[in-house]
Amino acid sequence: MSKNLPAISPLAPARFPRMPEIPGVRFSALAAGLKYTGRKDLFLAEMAKGTQVAGVFTTSKTASEPVTWCRDALKDGKGRALVVNAGNANAFTGAAGFKTVDITATATAKAVGCRKSDVFVASTGVIGETFDGQLIANLVNKMAKTLKPGNWKAAAEAIRTTDTFSKAATAKAMIGGKSVTIGGIAKGSGMIAPDMATMLSFVFTDAKIPSNILQKLLAASNKKSFNSITVDSDTSTSDTCLLFATGQARNTTINSAADPALKEFKAALDQVMQSLAHQIVRDGEGATKFVAVTVEGAENNKAARRIALSVANSPLVKTAIAGEDANWGRVVMAVGKAGERADRDKMRIQFGDHVIANDGGAVPDYDEDPVAAYMKGDEIQITTHVGIGRGKATVWTCDLTHGYITINADYRS
Amino acid sequence: MSKNLPAISPLAPARFPRMPEIPGVRFSALAAGLKYTGRKDLFLAEMAKGTQVAGVFTTSKTASEPVTWCRDALKDGKGRALVVNAGNANAFTGAAGFKTVDITATATAKAVGCRKSDVFVASTGVIGETFDGQLIANLVNKMAKTLKPGNWKAAAEAIRTTDTFSKAATAKAMIGGKSVTIGGIAKGSGMIAPDMATMLSFVFTDAKIPSNILQKLLAASNKKSFNSITVDSDTSTSDTCLLFATGQARNTTINSAADPALKEFKAALDQVMQSLAHQIVRDGEGATKFVAVTVEGAENNKAARRIALSVANSPLVKTAIAGEDANWGRVVMAVGKAGERADRDKMRIQFGDHVIANDGGAVPDYDEDPVAAYMKGDEIQITTHVGIGRGKATVWTCDLTHGYITINADYRS
Repeated sequence: MSKNLPAISPLAPARFPRMPEIPGVRFSALAAGLKYTGRKDLFLAEMAKGTQVAGVFTTSKTASEPVTWCRDALKDGKGRALVVNAGNANAFTGAAGFKTVDITATATAKAVGCRKSDVFVASTGVIGETFDGQLIANLVNKMAKTLKPGNWKAAAEAIRTTDTFSKAATAKAMIGGKSVTIGGIAKGSGMIAPDMATMLSFVFTDAKIPSNILQKLLAASNKKSFNSITVDSDTSTSDTCLLFATGQARNTTINSAADPALKEFKAALDQVMQSLAHQIVRDGEGATKFVAVTVEGAENNKAARRIALSVANSPLVKTAIAGEDANWGRVVMAVGKAGERADRDKMRIQFGDHVIANDGGAVPDYDEDPVAAYMKGDEIQITTHVGIGRGKATVWTCDLTHGYITINADYRS
Repeated sequence: MSKNLPAISPLAPARFPRMPEIPGVRFSALAAGLKYTGRKDLFLAEMAKGTQVAGVFTTSKTASEPVTWCRDALKDGKGRALVVNAGNANAFTGAAGFKTVDITATATAKAVGCRKSDVFVASTGVIGETFDGQLIANLVNKMAKTLKPGNWKAAAEAIRTTDTFSKAATAKAMIGGKSVTIGGIAKGSGMIAPDMATMLSFVFTDAKIPSNILQKLLAASNKKSFNSITVDSDTSTSDTCLLFATGQARNTTINSAADPALKEFKAALDQVMQSLAHQIVRDGEGATKFVAVTVEGAENNKAARRIALSVANSPLVKTAIAGEDANWGRVVMAVGKAGERADRDKMRIQFGDHVIANDGGAVPDYDEDPVAAYMKGDEIQITTHVGIGRGKATVWTCDLTHGYITINADYRS
């Protein structure tokens, strides 16, 4: 476990994925110099007329001004533009913060030719520092003139803060005989915990799905992706995930979230959302191991999820994994503190395929050597059966290393 | 912030306190070699006939065998002996674990001449490894012959695991014209979080208070001490706090926890419990700063406590303090994620006496220099007013440093 920070997370995917154009979606990104120099930090997306939108946001009681704005803008289910800046979160900025969003949205609406209420705004970066919306307003006109389809790499780069790599994912699906495409980007590596887990994610599709149904699909998929990851149990003030559907695929009319025609689309959306969520964990601050925690045999799925998060958030479990130690005693501890029912004397704990404890105690013929070898890998699966019922859940996290301390004890200096 | 671990926490008190004898209480401690070598790791306390006892324990659903034993032994409110071993927690050890406790208690009962159900047992150390109770049984007879009043230093040493210093506290009080004495020891530095926060604490007094009233006093004091500290949000399987009252002070009869004669005693008990709890935080694994988090203006005291714990448990707040950074944005985030009501636009945040944010934004004339100087101290007070009601709470924690990672990523190796 190195105390030096790698430039790119050792868990990063080998390459940025090949991303398709989404009919009805165009991007522009540039270096506005709001905080960073020498990199893109401002992103504009323009969606075709008629685009439907869904969104899920942080549950924080101190949500940022852009989150408040987006919640309002979402009410009519229509979205034509998205502006995102990195470097300043415009959170805890009071009346000045609202003004910044309003100036940004007004200028963007003018630049792309839509209503102000069809503009979505997201900001990520330092909390508590105001910045002038005019800085963005001065640039969106220029950006609107350079909009291009498929410029994913620039988009994914422009929304990064402490991320060590750009995150994107895509999938295809058939809806009633028509092929539709989904593509998304995300950013986030610290201040990551459920409700919402992402900091920012924007997903686009050419599927034609009305906003009320889109909202249900997004909420369901979000539960299995961004809300099932945790890096450090801290919940951001700015977490935002938006899903835009341009409708340009002209698929059959969808009247309900339960429509069987949506089966493939749901799976494809899950795939994109889960890939983006996993990429955020893989970019967890200081992460050297990608960890899946599965809980089985809980009272119900909700109890299983709560236990899994207790394990995934435990600093003692996470440091043990960093130390490549299959310390199942700490897993027992973390199961115990979750507050959900667990039968201590029926519990089973395994790392990968290696059953370490069973029926409430270490297995009699426990051989540490193969487990020690397993712990040296960079993907760790912890599975525990808690001996109560049939509830099951999986959440994803990373280990807790010196890198996390180095990054976060020095962030502002 | 050093990555090297000091032998003794930089936050340790200057010296072990001068501790009084408690009439009716005798101690013995020795090196049993259960795990450690060259230090005491087994502690026996014998209390006079008629001693009343109260106890509070971990809320873990995977509590250790000794915790289960103590809960049973507590039922009749009588206690004559206490045996504590360090090095093995006897947790998640199933039927073998119960047998270990039973053998220990049987031998101890014989050695001090009491019923088995009047023997209390506590174990701390590694989880999931069985050990033979006979190892202790063979020693208690010898220990019973060397019992002495006032051997606090040896007792406090014998119950340590990763602690870097021995912890004890004392106070005196008058009950109805009679002077009574309270003395206690504690151990714990990691796996520390509310419900219960301590790992182990044993408090003794010569006051004459019946067990049912003693239990109420202990529970109330525990809430303001051990249940108001957190090092890493992890809850141990073994947390135990026992309060033994020998009655040798022969004070006036106490018939109710609300008896005015108990006023001084309650304050003295709080003082001892809070001192021990603070010493545990001061010995937090890798700690370099002692941090008090006070929340005011919450909906009620319970909400205030929940918000305070959210701040005190936030890895981002704790790493910022380690980096001597008055990062109030992270405090806003941690208040927001607590799930309790907070008025973002009325919030006030101060570090020590320095008001940094007010009415939902940074103070206009914020001068960072005096705050930066304040953050270099080793005692940090964070106070936040959340602008809702009159609820108030204080909890105590420490910073999160490279030392915590070093200790916990290498614990078993």
